[in-house]
Amino acid sequence: MKIAVDAMGGDHAPQAIVRGAEQAAQQFRDIRVVLYGDKEAILPHLEQPELVDIVHTTEKVASDDDPVRAVRRKKNASMVLAAREVKEGKVDAVISAGNTGALLAAGTLIVGRIKGIDRPALMSTMPSLEGEREAFTFMDLGANADCKPEQLHQFGILGSYYAASIRQIDQPTVALLNNGTEDNKGNMLSKEAFKLLQEDQSLNFVGNVEARDILQAPADVIVTDGFTGNAVLKSIEGTAKSLMNIIKSTIQSGSFTTKLGGLLVKKDLSSIKDTLDYSKYGGAVLFGLKAPVIKTHGSANEEAVYHTIKQARDILRAGVIDQLREAFDPQNENK
Amino acid sequence: MKIAVDAMGGDHAPQAIVRGAEQAAQQFRDIRVVLYGDKEAILPHLEQPELVDIVHTTEKVASDDDPVRAVRRKKNASMVLAAREVKEGKVDAVISAGNTGALLAAGTLIVGRIKGIDRPALMSTMPSLEGEREAFTFMDLGANADCKPEQLHQFGILGSYYAASIRQIDQPTVALLNNGTEDNKGNMLSKEAFKLLQEDQSLNFVGNVEARDILQAPADVIVTDGFTGNAVLKSIEGTAKSLMNIIKSTIQSGSFTTKLGGLLVKKDLSSIKDTLDYSKYGGAVLFGLKAPVIKTHGSANEEAVYHTIKQARDILRAGVIDQLREAFDPQNENK
Repeated sequence: MKIAVDAMGGDHAPQAIVRGAEQAAQQFRDIRVVLYGDKEAILPHLEQPELVDIVHTTEKVASDDDPVRAVRRKKNASMVLAAREVKEGKVDAVISAGNTGALLAAGTLIVGRIKGIDRPALMSTMPSLEGEREAFTFMDLGANADCKPEQLHQFGILGSYYAASIRQIDQPTVALLNNGTEDNKGNMLSKEAFKLLQEDQSLNFVGNVEARDILQAPADVIVTDGFTGNAVLKSIEGTAKSLMNIIKSTIQSGSFTTKLGGLLVKKDLSSIKDTLDYSKYGGAVLFGLKAPVIKTHGSANEEAVYHTIKQARDILRAGVIDQLREAFDPQNENK
Repeated sequence: MKIAVDAMGGDHAPQAIVRGAEQAAQQFRDIRVVLYGDKEAILPHLEQPELVDIVHTTEKVASDDDPVRAVRRKKNASMVLAAREVKEGKVDAVISAGNTGALLAAGTLIVGRIKGIDRPALMSTMPSLEGEREAFTFMDLGANADCKPEQLHQFGILGSYYAASIRQIDQPTVALLNNGTEDNKGNMLSKEAFKLLQEDQSLNFVGNVEARDILQAPADVIVTDGFTGNAVLKSIEGTAKSLMNIIKSTIQSGSFTTKLGGLLVKKDLSSIKDTLDYSKYGGAVLFGLKAPVIKTHGSANEEAVYHTIKQARDILRAGVIDQLREAFDPQNENK
């Protein structure tokens, strides 16, 4: 198994990317990590260069590049080159912390969809903050701003395969994000999607869930359209960040007693950050393509990169892409 | 000015409603508060019954009643009766903490839209947690699960009138909630709405904002469709609640040092709750109707009810409904 890693994307590239990649290469001897990027910039961060391969290129996609144009014109950019080598079968999966839109475009335009899957979904597995379930797989996080009911139905199937194969959950529960829990709630899209999800006997569909309860992981898989999913994910991130900032500044500007108390609780409160950190589940997978394409956070550190490579390895080892081909394209009309 | 208050809706009805209403009646001598509900249940909570009027009815809308059916069939339910008396001109505004859907239906079906306004929007003014602006007015929070671009444009106008008249902001800035800040971002709806908002020279439109930044109040007015607005509002509420619960349980299950620290910071951290509390801005207004219809939170306490009555008084005193009529229906074709 060869895993392509875009060494040049993300806020801490190439250092965090290269070091995370080397850590994964040390840990997992059944994979070969291939770094795409400027060899001169990569090598100083490697302790054991022999553990990885490097495909040298000096071109890269900038964070503010127009996604589709970048993919079409910057043929030798680290991310684009990596996607092309996946397409050509030289590597088996691609990971980047760079321009999200460009990676989605590279995935869709270069790696390509599995026949029968209308649109790939961008999905993340996120920790629950309360409740019994440890985590939930949430999609679409923004790959498809406009969705049809049939696509939300497919997302339910895709998420179900992911949760079963990668998270090893037996008959994962699937829920629809909606503006109320009753069966008849929703906008036109979610009402239609509800029917399709409910009719599909292959799914363990449990109905509607509200955004208010999403961090309690009311189901193993939660689906919505890419516009809403993006808004919900960003609302959660923004609220958590603002609240932590307020708590910090409240303690810092508080009385002597409060400041003292702040020092005493600091260590345990810092552990909450770990609870919120979902990088241990890897990155956001663009799922439904012929190979795993994974976006790790722009601010990804070494550990997040390590976990994302581990996730790509898990996906390859579980053979879930083949399961999807089997399910959506039983005649094997894909080349 | 007469303000109708549904005494029977909400988790703490009638006590919290009645006591909040009496507090407002004591404070504002230029309004008359009219309570709708069971006289026997209301009277025990009044200290000065002469300060308010009571319209007696024993029927009420239950929280799980089907909204439209409840409004059509329960003609004498406290909420429905209050809306009808607004329509008949006996009172000037209506407030309820009860079934949100039923209040929206009562507002639209009984009180009625201002001619020229396609759909009323449910809007709340929320405190910012960071940043320079104190608050922002956010809509639609769920009155219109499916919206057209023209409606989002109207929401911008409605919000602008509200922010100017009630919050007394000169040329309020208006932003569109979107999945990126660049001008060309969005789904089909938001791309079209962006154009309409940008073309409207009467608006101080400042472009797109992301849900991640919404609690920093990047504009005075932020508009989106009712499905997304509902999801974002509930995500914020859910995340804040889960985080506060985690912090509490982290401290409670921590070491002796942490517990001690928890005691010391407790007082100041409690003040954060007040920062998050948006009841001081009143309730959610269904704006665009011929009279103010305001939903206060189901869990509204006495103080929230007081602030909501104050808000209804502000709206009436500012004459903003007449301004809307003038703007949308200059021929005064409304009866």
